[in-house]
Amino acid sequence: MSYTDILIDYNMENFTIFNPTQIHFGKNAIDELPDKIKEYTDHILLMYGKGSVIRNGYHRIITDKLKGAGIKITEFSGIKPNPLVSDVEKAISAGINNNVGLVLALGGGSVIDSAKITALCIPEKLNAWDVVIAKVNPKQALPIFTVLTLAATGTEMNQFAVVQNEETKEKLGFRSHLMYPVHSFINPEFTYSVPADYTAYGIVDLIAHCFENYFGIGESSLSENFVASVVKESMYYAPLLLKDLNNYNYRANILLQSTFALNGTTMVGKSSGDWGVHAIGHTLSVLFDTPHGASLSVAYPAWLKLMKDKIPDKISNLSRLIYGSEEVDLFIEKIELFFKTIGSPVNLIEAGIELSEKEKIIDLMKKNKISGYKYQFSEYEKITDLMYGIL
Amino acid sequence: MSYTDILIDYNMENFTIFNPTQIHFGKNAIDELPDKIKEYTDHILLMYGKGSVIRNGYHRIITDKLKGAGIKITEFSGIKPNPLVSDVEKAISAGINNNVGLVLALGGGSVIDSAKITALCIPEKLNAWDVVIAKVNPKQALPIFTVLTLAATGTEMNQFAVVQNEETKEKLGFRSHLMYPVHSFINPEFTYSVPADYTAYGIVDLIAHCFENYFGIGESSLSENFVASVVKESMYYAPLLLKDLNNYNYRANILLQSTFALNGTTMVGKSSGDWGVHAIGHTLSVLFDTPHGASLSVAYPAWLKLMKDKIPDKISNLSRLIYGSEEVDLFIEKIELFFKTIGSPVNLIEAGIELSEKEKIIDLMKKNKISGYKYQFSEYEKITDLMYGIL
Repeated sequence: MSYTDILIDYNMENFTIFNPTQIHFGKNAIDELPDKIKEYTDHILLMYGKGSVIRNGYHRIITDKLKGAGIKITEFSGIKPNPLVSDVEKAISAGINNNVGLVLALGGGSVIDSAKITALCIPEKLNAWDVVIAKVNPKQALPIFTVLTLAATGTEMNQFAVVQNEETKEKLGFRSHLMYPVHSFINPEFTYSVPADYTAYGIVDLIAHCFENYFGIGESSLSENFVASVVKESMYYAPLLLKDLNNYNYRANILLQSTFALNGTTMVGKSSGDWGVHAIGHTLSVLFDTPHGASLSVAYPAWLKLMKDKIPDKISNLSRLIYGSEEVDLFIEKIELFFKTIGSPVNLIEAGIELSEKEKIIDLMKKNKISGYKYQFSEYEKITDLMYGIL
Repeated sequence: MSYTDILIDYNMENFTIFNPTQIHFGKNAIDELPDKIKEYTDHILLMYGKGSVIRNGYHRIITDKLKGAGIKITEFSGIKPNPLVSDVEKAISAGINNNVGLVLALGGGSVIDSAKITALCIPEKLNAWDVVIAKVNPKQALPIFTVLTLAATGTEMNQFAVVQNEETKEKLGFRSHLMYPVHSFINPEFTYSVPADYTAYGIVDLIAHCFENYFGIGESSLSENFVASVVKESMYYAPLLLKDLNNYNYRANILLQSTFALNGTTMVGKSSGDWGVHAIGHTLSVLFDTPHGASLSVAYPAWLKLMKDKIPDKISNLSRLIYGSEEVDLFIEKIELFFKTIGSPVNLIEAGIELSEKEKIIDLMKKNKISGYKYQFSEYEKITDLMYGIL
């Protein structure tokens, strides 16, 4: 089918466009942080990870600025790269016990996602996992502020959060309109310290978000063009950045692309992304603590190979938008090569997961019945073989 | 200079991203209107134009729905296509005298812009023109709701308004964070009644917004890609729509493109658009009541011809993004031909403005010292000659 024929059949569903987060971007971004906090409270819960923000000095810069403005800080640190709901529970308790009025996340996606859930659970003293699995429906949240230190998930400007339950061996994402950050502060200099591998994983993640939205529910050619814009730009800047990690301009561009990959722009006119590949990736992270982006560079090529006979037109249209060529096999090869070139693994062996783990992966996918919202699949053995590069 | 060289030099200024408007899009869009209004008030000021919304039945649909929900309506009608500040003053009085709690605009850009200024002036009983020229700075505004009936200005999802002062012969745009509509309702069926000429003018307007942002202050390659996305999509759907005015899908796409042309997306990473061509267009509207979009299809090709020797790289990059070719003269020809093909005038004679008016145009541009924010110009005679097709 030609692109023209496809477009003429497109029909836009009923949908909403809404994203109230205010982004403050640039070298002076955090100057406004104290004043914006004081519009709400003078006592915050500051959440961060395992110490890199202390080693890199960002923690000191932020706390000096806040204390100087008379803002009281309760700290909660130790959020892990694959964030655990048990840590979120502890942060909720810390917030409740200290009667904080706002949650400030200093970090990347795991810290921000944990902070979002914490802010959602404090006012009504809710159990975090109950909220994640929609057993309870929060009516309010504390204001959420973020200072971003990693270009990847886009969580600084959306209503999503992902968290892992160690007991049930699930890593789940969910959405709530109450989880939009009020203010997010992005100084590209705060990402200079991200090493090459995690820089690459972040780029994989943002591209994966574009793809998940492209393969999502609803048809909108404008959003597909936006997908191609973000993907092409990130493919352009990625190799430049990886050769020059302290370049302001490259860091700034990758940050902006990661924000726009998942702030609604790449899914305007649609009701949901597909998220099937993220579900596969989460399986790897739960089992092997695989970094999120690395899990996606393994899973996406495999998923495309699984789907190429089922939805060839949809994949070839994406290829046309990004590369100007409609050849599906070539497209998958190019995507795989791009991930590999920037230093992210494209099969399980490269990700350090031995062939002996195969059944474990298949079993957990089966147990959690993972699939996509738009494109269903249950060929767990086949996709695992594809991820090992066996097929 | 190659595109690669240009991009490497790009440097993103400090900027913010913020747009809190909620868009409800689709055939069922207005179902939620009464409930959303009642979150704020049970007495609204309903503003609309010269009667087409009554003839087409939209007024009846809306008022039945609101009255059925127990919402009291004070009406103000008669807003003109080039909206007058004197009408806005009357609307402000009507709002104050009737103690309304919200302003609902039912119409296109002129009605919505008038409603925005009205909502901004009612709480503190301000003079509208004082607000437009920033002589006073409003501290609050009534909530602004819109029901859109024309794809063009994008005002349904931004903080801008444009209004004309008959006495000073100025048509000025201004911005205020208080003027973001809270909710905008877009049912593409409500635009079926827009005739071909005004449909075309709206398309010119949305493309002009993309161009103004492209030529604006600040450098961001992502926004340039978004510009190209919106322009290419609208050039694709425009001829389809003009042959099939009651096609839901085509109307929906053009509407979405007009919203995204000026909701911040095409200027992300920048601090302002250029707006020089709009200033020229406003001059024509003030003098001859030229429809806004028609004034822009006359002014843009002329401005590009004026600028092509000053900023050839900037124009050729836009050509590359849209057409894949960097030839500046060919680009200007293609843009002009596109406007002409969809039925919008590309010179003053086609717009019904005789050569005898030349001095009047030059004099008013001089008097109002019109120019762009980024690219200054004062060659008023030359640009007028270019608009007449004399040069």
